[in-house]
Amino acid sequence: MLSYPHFSFQIQNTSVKSRARVGKLSTPHGEVATPAFIFCATKGAIKGASPQQMKSAGTQIMLGNTYHLMLSPGGELIERLGGLHRFMAWDGPLLTDSGGFQVFSMGYGSVSHEIKKKQMDSRPKTVLKITEEGVTFRSYLDGSLHVLTPEKSIQVQRQLGPDFVVVFDECTPYHVDKSYTEKSLHLSHRWGLRCLQEFEQHHDGRQALYGILQGGVYPDLRQQAAEFVNSQPFFGHAVGGSLGEEKAEMYEVIDHSLSLLDSSRPVHLLGIGGIKDIFVGVAAGVDTFDCVHPTRLARHGGALIRAVQGEETTREHIVLSNRRHQQDERPIDATCPCETCKVFSRAYLHYLFRANEFLGIQALILHNVAYMNRLMQAIREAIVTDRVEEEQRLWVHD
Amino acid sequence: MLSYPHFSFQIQNTSVKSRARVGKLSTPHGEVATPAFIFCATKGAIKGASPQQMKSAGTQIMLGNTYHLMLSPGGELIERLGGLHRFMAWDGPLLTDSGGFQVFSMGYGSVSHEIKKKQMDSRPKTVLKITEEGVTFRSYLDGSLHVLTPEKSIQVQRQLGPDFVVVFDECTPYHVDKSYTEKSLHLSHRWGLRCLQEFEQHHDGRQALYGILQGGVYPDLRQQAAEFVNSQPFFGHAVGGSLGEEKAEMYEVIDHSLSLLDSSRPVHLLGIGGIKDIFVGVAAGVDTFDCVHPTRLARHGGALIRAVQGEETTREHIVLSNRRHQQDERPIDATCPCETCKVFSRAYLHYLFRANEFLGIQALILHNVAYMNRLMQAIREAIVTDRVEEEQRLWVHD
Repeated sequence: MLSYPHFSFQIQNTSVKSRARVGKLSTPHGEVATPAFIFCATKGAIKGASPQQMKSAGTQIMLGNTYHLMLSPGGELIERLGGLHRFMAWDGPLLTDSGGFQVFSMGYGSVSHEIKKKQMDSRPKTVLKITEEGVTFRSYLDGSLHVLTPEKSIQVQRQLGPDFVVVFDECTPYHVDKSYTEKSLHLSHRWGLRCLQEFEQHHDGRQALYGILQGGVYPDLRQQAAEFVNSQPFFGHAVGGSLGEEKAEMYEVIDHSLSLLDSSRPVHLLGIGGIKDIFVGVAAGVDTFDCVHPTRLARHGGALIRAVQGEETTREHIVLSNRRHQQDERPIDATCPCETCKVFSRAYLHYLFRANEFLGIQALILHNVAYMNRLMQAIREAIVTDRVEEEQRLWVHD
Repeated sequence: MLSYPHFSFQIQNTSVKSRARVGKLSTPHGEVATPAFIFCATKGAIKGASPQQMKSAGTQIMLGNTYHLMLSPGGELIERLGGLHRFMAWDGPLLTDSGGFQVFSMGYGSVSHEIKKKQMDSRPKTVLKITEEGVTFRSYLDGSLHVLTPEKSIQVQRQLGPDFVVVFDECTPYHVDKSYTEKSLHLSHRWGLRCLQEFEQHHDGRQALYGILQGGVYPDLRQQAAEFVNSQPFFGHAVGGSLGEEKAEMYEVIDHSLSLLDSSRPVHLLGIGGIKDIFVGVAAGVDTFDCVHPTRLARHGGALIRAVQGEETTREHIVLSNRRHQQDERPIDATCPCETCKVFSRAYLHYLFRANEFLGIQALILHNVAYMNRLMQAIREAIVTDRVEEEQRLWVHD
């Protein structure tokens, strides 16, 4: 039976008002205080921040994308160079995804074509074939043909060598119907079992496997999916699949999904990083989140900002290239301990974005990373004192 | 009479074998151990390194370009925001140039047109008119008309508020003849006197003015120029103008120029940053250098590397995007104390450049900056022990 002697997940505090909990994820590369945010070093690098900078901004854990890394520079090379930790010089806990999400999302036009028997958009068909065996797709880099199977995904993730590995599943587009979702769910479960088998075969204790909860927006399918993952020897669970089109539906799917999952295992919510969404996820019992949002937002001049600052924004961020910051001597947030807020004025950041100076992006990435880590720390503290709702009012703009 | 009570230049050691000297430049923002390298924060930012990162890489002093900063965001705004030090968050010594070099070099086609009465190349004419009063040019940003005069240059540099200010001079193209060079020299001297007058009028002790030595490749004109600058109350001198087309000629012009200048004043060599060139300049008696080379090189994947490492390169750097680094687990230089060499392999840096990940540029900038600062420190130590030639063999590839 698969076991994870070098990993553990301890729940230290549980809210009396919700399923929110504070925990500790232990890995061969250190501990993660949860709830935690996982930053996306998509191609094995954060665009604009070194691993040391990520660490000093409070980062506990990062992820790399198997899809990108298997295409370039390739799992073999990274393995030969000592694994992804060593390659990207990140010595903390690390997760990789299965590669599935990018294969399917980048080949979305063609997935929907296969599903709906018509062309949904004009993107090139990079996904050529989905069979029981796996997925055939073309590299976005050079058009070369690749086959990703459950076994291959686990093999590549073994080469990359992160602490956390995720099973390969089919990611269906948002608008597929229930019958396709159910068919896909069963395929993903068969793939999940093949992943487990491949994983177990070479298991040396240095990695832990996450199963994925599929089932789309359909409560009974989520139930089936939960029964499957709970019954398998996964270390943790990731909530995937369609969460619905609107926030209200998404929050319902998250809450329902979490209610079904084995609560002794850590739960990761895939690809969600909005501030309000994180509070909803935490209350539902989510332990870790990942999203490109904080770093992508920075590249577009957006700085995350707390509601308590009373900025004139209806979003969770301000846009530094906006003219209203041109002469503003204040930092983004005077209470923020990040390097950016310590030394740069909004006026300077405004100027940097107007002048296309990359330092502006770097500065906002550091701020947004520090912001997310500070947010998660505040949430952990608020769970212990059962003041999550009060804390939420400081961060979330209504 | 103009004096600089808050500035000083102390010569602490002089080589017995050359004019090389170790000194200390004191400014209201701290001291600079010389010989020193000044990094170009062209538009008020290093592309890829924060002021804190520059400082931890050993940087003592930076410069900003008046031409760029006066066009955007403008001297008035920077003054209102507390000056360039505060604006760019650099609290160490800072120099600005006069703006002249960019005006003339970016409008080069038209300068040569005026001089040679023919169109030398197809670049747009941004310099429209050179008169006794000053230069009329078009902004490269929006085509708007600007007039830069000696007075205006000093006024803008007063608004920017750096420690060191440079007089406005005419920068002639490389291939003008002696008669034009002499005419231009006299114009630059009249402009120099106007700069001094404008500078003195508002002098509050917080800035020190550098005169510029012109004269091109003509020894008698350099002599005339030196007599002029030596006789004026400049704090220091910058060697400008054409240094010739080939290295041998350049080294001769530098050596001859330095032999003419008042050796009690600090001497800056404008725009020179090659490693061998720096050793030649130091031996001639140069105290400070500036050049975009180390940071620009980094943006193109080049890492400065010492001769002692025995790399297969005929240049002073290696190019990380080169395929031979693809599987190389070594750092750029195992003896380099920079953050990049501490954690990143050449293979990872190679990958970052191949994948167009900006972190590669950031990493090489940190290395090249640390390299230059380490070079200058090694030179200072070698001057004290009179072992500059031996030190040069460790750094310069022959």
